[in-house]
Amino acid sequence: MTSTPVARPDDVRRHNRSTLLRLLHVGGPHTRAALATELGLNRSTIKTLVDGLAESGVVEERVPRPGRGAGRPSLLVLPQPQAAVVLAVDVQVEHVAIALVGLGGQILGRNSWNLHGRTGEPGEVITHVVESTAVLAGDLGVQPVAAGVSVPGVVRRSDGHVHEAPNLRWTEVALGERLAAILRIPVQVGNDAEFGAVAEHLRGTARGAQDVVYVSADIGVGGGVIAQGSSLRGAAGYVGEIGHMVIRPGGRTCYCGNQGCWETEVGEAALCRALELAPDSPRGRVIVELRRLAGRPDEARARLAEFVEWLTLGLVNVVNLLGPQLVVLGDLFTALPPSLLEQVGAEVRRRSLVSRAVGGVRVEGSKLGADVKLLGAAEAAFEGVLDTV
Amino acid sequence: MTSTPVARPDDVRRHNRSTLLRLLHVGGPHTRAALATELGLNRSTIKTLVDGLAESGVVEERVPRPGRGAGRPSLLVLPQPQAAVVLAVDVQVEHVAIALVGLGGQILGRNSWNLHGRTGEPGEVITHVVESTAVLAGDLGVQPVAAGVSVPGVVRRSDGHVHEAPNLRWTEVALGERLAAILRIPVQVGNDAEFGAVAEHLRGTARGAQDVVYVSADIGVGGGVIAQGSSLRGAAGYVGEIGHMVIRPGGRTCYCGNQGCWETEVGEAALCRALELAPDSPRGRVIVELRRLAGRPDEARARLAEFVEWLTLGLVNVVNLLGPQLVVLGDLFTALPPSLLEQVGAEVRRRSLVSRAVGGVRVEGSKLGADVKLLGAAEAAFEGVLDTV
Repeated sequence: MTSTPVARPDDVRRHNRSTLLRLLHVGGPHTRAALATELGLNRSTIKTLVDGLAESGVVEERVPRPGRGAGRPSLLVLPQPQAAVVLAVDVQVEHVAIALVGLGGQILGRNSWNLHGRTGEPGEVITHVVESTAVLAGDLGVQPVAAGVSVPGVVRRSDGHVHEAPNLRWTEVALGERLAAILRIPVQVGNDAEFGAVAEHLRGTARGAQDVVYVSADIGVGGGVIAQGSSLRGAAGYVGEIGHMVIRPGGRTCYCGNQGCWETEVGEAALCRALELAPDSPRGRVIVELRRLAGRPDEARARLAEFVEWLTLGLVNVVNLLGPQLVVLGDLFTALPPSLLEQVGAEVRRRSLVSRAVGGVRVEGSKLGADVKLLGAAEAAFEGVLDTV
Repeated sequence: MTSTPVARPDDVRRHNRSTLLRLLHVGGPHTRAALATELGLNRSTIKTLVDGLAESGVVEERVPRPGRGAGRPSLLVLPQPQAAVVLAVDVQVEHVAIALVGLGGQILGRNSWNLHGRTGEPGEVITHVVESTAVLAGDLGVQPVAAGVSVPGVVRRSDGHVHEAPNLRWTEVALGERLAAILRIPVQVGNDAEFGAVAEHLRGTARGAQDVVYVSADIGVGGGVIAQGSSLRGAAGYVGEIGHMVIRPGGRTCYCGNQGCWETEVGEAALCRALELAPDSPRGRVIVELRRLAGRPDEARARLAEFVEWLTLGLVNVVNLLGPQLVVLGDLFTALPPSLLEQVGAEVRRRSLVSRAVGGVRVEGSKLGADVKLLGAAEAAFEGVLDTV
């Protein structure tokens, strides 16, 4: 209670400025009139703010494409991508991707490399990220002012400390501090599913929804939660590890020490078992098999029955614990046959007390594709930037 | 994003006033100097605010009890309990309690009645609450300005609609609207475990902790979550139903339609089974048996082994999903033998990945006793009041 910030008059203008900028960054071009309506400010305040931002090159005003309406069209206020550029990094188990993202969320350029089956030693990954960033920034003629880094692991958001990233075989890596010391810009390191949730909330399927759970399935299973419009974090900034909910007591042993974690029942290895593929089948092989099944709903239902049951049961628990209005399934889950995804959604609605109360939670596949974590990492980086541009 | 409130200069004083009042309400008497430090405001601003509140009778200033320090003691600023009184109602399965609570959180008077084995029909409960409140308010010479009502069920916080309170046999009761129409004051209706969490956070074991889960065990099992200092709610203001996390697939059938819900494994009925008591044993009988076992740790461990395992497993899941720093166990759980509670805490720390990351979640029994939900309901009522006193 005592931490409630106390607003002072001289904070007000800065606050209005960053709120307006956030609206343009996330919502895209707006007319001055629309900005006034959305922010509840009068037009002269909007004029002062927009003129100030235009003068410093953060926004520009442009005549919109001719429409059918009569009369003089209103000028559109657009964010200038180059006015604030951030670095987004997505560290995956076999693959690292970087992108430079401009104000407004546009990817200005990108690069990526495989780890060729080796798990990336942290120092090696850091060096590669720093070098690739320098090359990319040089090519584009921009300099990132902040960075966001997505890691598939247990991450302390306050300082970007990676407690454990099992599938990378990282433990206790001070990734945030090490990267910030070299890049000399603020670095936000977060769990990949948290960043996935942020991206879905701001730019994806969950746009406009205030209570969302994003579930990612790669080698591990993770979850990110948006509650009342904000990222849900626990103590010390750690986010929950949905994949380590025990769902099948006495089941397979998980690296975390428990048996029957959700991850062991619906992660990539479980999907390979269900599809009768070798445990280390390449991702492409899994996807090809799932695509084939998409055309044969009966066969899909039969072969994936157990997998689907564990997926459903875990989602029932997630919905009963968190009461979201929308669950977005990402990564591998998006490759499941559509008929099965529909069945999962219907079962979750039927079997979850909280879904029945809320009036029916929606379960949908992510549409942001492979960029989802990169986009989320960029937004984490932008969070501190929009107040100071 | 677009809903970020935009502060205006004339909001600042009102904001400071209610922040100061909240500090006194929750934190108790403060000197002016301590208020200035806590709120980060200068002494002349504090003087203006305190003088204004004293003039309207909301606070008073008093010489503290003589201490050992030299010099003139600072005056203490105290909230005046009568300046704002709220009604708190705790609807339980066999029992309803009401209290009038003054500014500062003091219970000024209370009343309660048994439902004598009948489940209370909503209209009957409403009538009894209204009549008892009138009598109590008359006796005390006060008038409540808002009400908070705790219900063991699935409640929509926005309008106090009770979707389902199975153990009361209530479904779709517009409790908030019906009570507000008669009492003619704002009424906040909430889930009992949510209100328990609020009380623990503001006035109990979890005071000062920002990430807390409160788990209540009565006939049902419920949970309330404080995340980053605020009550966690999902879509439409429904809070999660922790008790309906499926933890033992294929286990006992729960009224919610699933099998092996946490509630069916660690609720009062499960405890009776573990203690080999009749399923409908009175609460007192259960407590007597638990007290007896407290003196015989080996017997307690043996007889409650399975119960404790399900309690532990559920808490591992709760900790892995939500990452709290503290779990407070309420109601019946507080009567478990202390040696078992310690064992549960140690096992949760050992078996939860997120606890290991965070550095060890604490698991503690509630110390607020039977008043916990009443106190939480009062705080829900005060929430809207402190801005307008």
